[in-house]
Amino acid sequence: MSDATYDVLGVGNAIVDIIAQADEAFLEKHGMPKGGMALIDEAQAHAIYADMGAAIEASGGSAGNTIAGVASYGGKAAFIGKVKQDTFGEIFKHDLTSLGVTFATPAATDGPATARCLVLVTSDAQRTMNTHLGACVNLTPDDIDADLVAASAITYLEGYLFDPPAAKEAFRKASTIARGAGRKVALTLSDSFCVHRYKDEFKALIDQHVDILFANDDEIEALYGNRDIAAAANDLASKIDVVAITLGSQGSLIASGEGRYEIPASPIDELVDTTGAGDLYAAGVLYGLSRHLPFAECGRLGSIAASEVIQHYGARPQVALAELA
Amino acid sequence: MSDATYDVLGVGNAIVDIIAQADEAFLEKHGMPKGGMALIDEAQAHAIYADMGAAIEASGGSAGNTIAGVASYGGKAAFIGKVKQDTFGEIFKHDLTSLGVTFATPAATDGPATARCLVLVTSDAQRTMNTHLGACVNLTPDDIDADLVAASAITYLEGYLFDPPAAKEAFRKASTIARGAGRKVALTLSDSFCVHRYKDEFKALIDQHVDILFANDDEIEALYGNRDIAAAANDLASKIDVVAITLGSQGSLIASGEGRYEIPASPIDELVDTTGAGDLYAAGVLYGLSRHLPFAECGRLGSIAASEVIQHYGARPQVALAELA
Repeated sequence: MSDATYDVLGVGNAIVDIIAQADEAFLEKHGMPKGGMALIDEAQAHAIYADMGAAIEASGGSAGNTIAGVASYGGKAAFIGKVKQDTFGEIFKHDLTSLGVTFATPAATDGPATARCLVLVTSDAQRTMNTHLGACVNLTPDDIDADLVAASAITYLEGYLFDPPAAKEAFRKASTIARGAGRKVALTLSDSFCVHRYKDEFKALIDQHVDILFANDDEIEALYGNRDIAAAANDLASKIDVVAITLGSQGSLIASGEGRYEIPASPIDELVDTTGAGDLYAAGVLYGLSRHLPFAECGRLGSIAASEVIQHYGARPQVALAELA
Repeated sequence: MSDATYDVLGVGNAIVDIIAQADEAFLEKHGMPKGGMALIDEAQAHAIYADMGAAIEASGGSAGNTIAGVASYGGKAAFIGKVKQDTFGEIFKHDLTSLGVTFATPAATDGPATARCLVLVTSDAQRTMNTHLGACVNLTPDDIDADLVAASAITYLEGYLFDPPAAKEAFRKASTIARGAGRKVALTLSDSFCVHRYKDEFKALIDQHVDILFANDDEIEALYGNRDIAAAANDLASKIDVVAITLGSQGSLIASGEGRYEIPASPIDELVDTTGAGDLYAAGVLYGLSRHLPFAECGRLGSIAASEVIQHYGARPQVALAELA
């Protein structure tokens, strides 16, 4: 992959997070399944925002977070995603490009506002997400820059892209171009609720289009109906290049044709907000894979990035990951 | 003051902070005096934002932060300040009203956007601020609700209000109404650069209109030309009810006709970002004064609030101060 201009290209929903603390009663009152990501419309977004506590705003989006992490490790990174020309769109773009990420997808000039995710963090540091997709519904196959995909060693796609219908087509276009150019396609299953929505499509995708898969134990269970993680890892490793399964505080498992690696979690001082843990784990692993580092080292970089992001509010690193590692 | 509907009413510039890390070279390149607050125009705001790193957004503004702290201690609080009807205006309003703060100043429907402050945090946790006042220039005496002022035990005014000319008149109107209603007027000197800009006016104000004064050692020096803090405290305590002088990691000094109290700083685990330290100290002291707590206890509440806010990015408390105390 040494001829690639970019180490990793991310394609995902371009979202700004609005993050507040909440108690269990708040989640119950609003019927929010704890730990999940629910899609909400504009009216719901206003109602929840009006009822939630004082917040901070920070760029988010699953693949966006991962790409920020890759750049923070010193990787050459690019992103494709749809914002609107508005305040949150400007913030989202600034927070990627200021890290050196190439982000040239044209912002929408009309239609819904830039996507926002209302993130409620409970005292156990668990996050419950409510996403108003807004401008993300306007990401179409036309936004997939074929030259950019072909110039990227790895194209990383988030499962959440299956929610906006046109984005799903953009997803398929990107993976087809990447495969055709001899590049690698990576996928994150994103969320167990998302897996339930698109189970059969995800299974077919993994069999036919994916080289590198990221998932957590809940998503594996949602996909295969049981929690035998080791068996699932072995099965997947016989079909695709690499599978990386996160196990929360237990660390992660990386499996490939070469073998299986148990990766410990990095130690932390204080667990604050788990938002972005999986995204930043993927950042470390993808950076390592793009630089052909050994699997154990890829996993270590993933664990370091995840441990940084869960010790503060917000899903983007607050320190340069290259210095942490 | 037991007949007051509100413990503390804050009047200040309504600002959303955009917070990023920066190194000393960045401050030098942009000619920013470290630790200060510089006023910038819209073009400068765009240029600095384009050059600064990935950021987070959080409601700020000196008096706004203090009022958020008073509410977080369980105080009955209100705020007067000018935003525009835009995304940052909505965020600023939400972050106060969600704490139970009364904030009814009409948002501007035209004119400049809601104010933003570009906050650069260096590795020593010092913050350097660049404020585009935006909609704050449209705060006028008409926005001072006389009934609200008269119903508030303490009206708290930030020195920064002297920067937008109409707001200075609003400031004078608020202090005159408060005094006339037999209420207390509190002032923070805000910033040593601000003191240099309005030194004579601040001196006259303290002599004629202020009951409770907040300052740090730099601001006292800017006002009186020397660093003899104890002498300044004694002198001020002979003229006004209470003076509270913060001394960074050395804690603070509270002086009144009853005596002088040395208040230790609260212990912290990690110093991250000093933005809001003085604002939150004032929150604790004002809450205590409004509830007629002993001066030493007022100081303790100030130290606790300041120590909370300097251990994370952003100038508003991330936990309920009432629980911390």
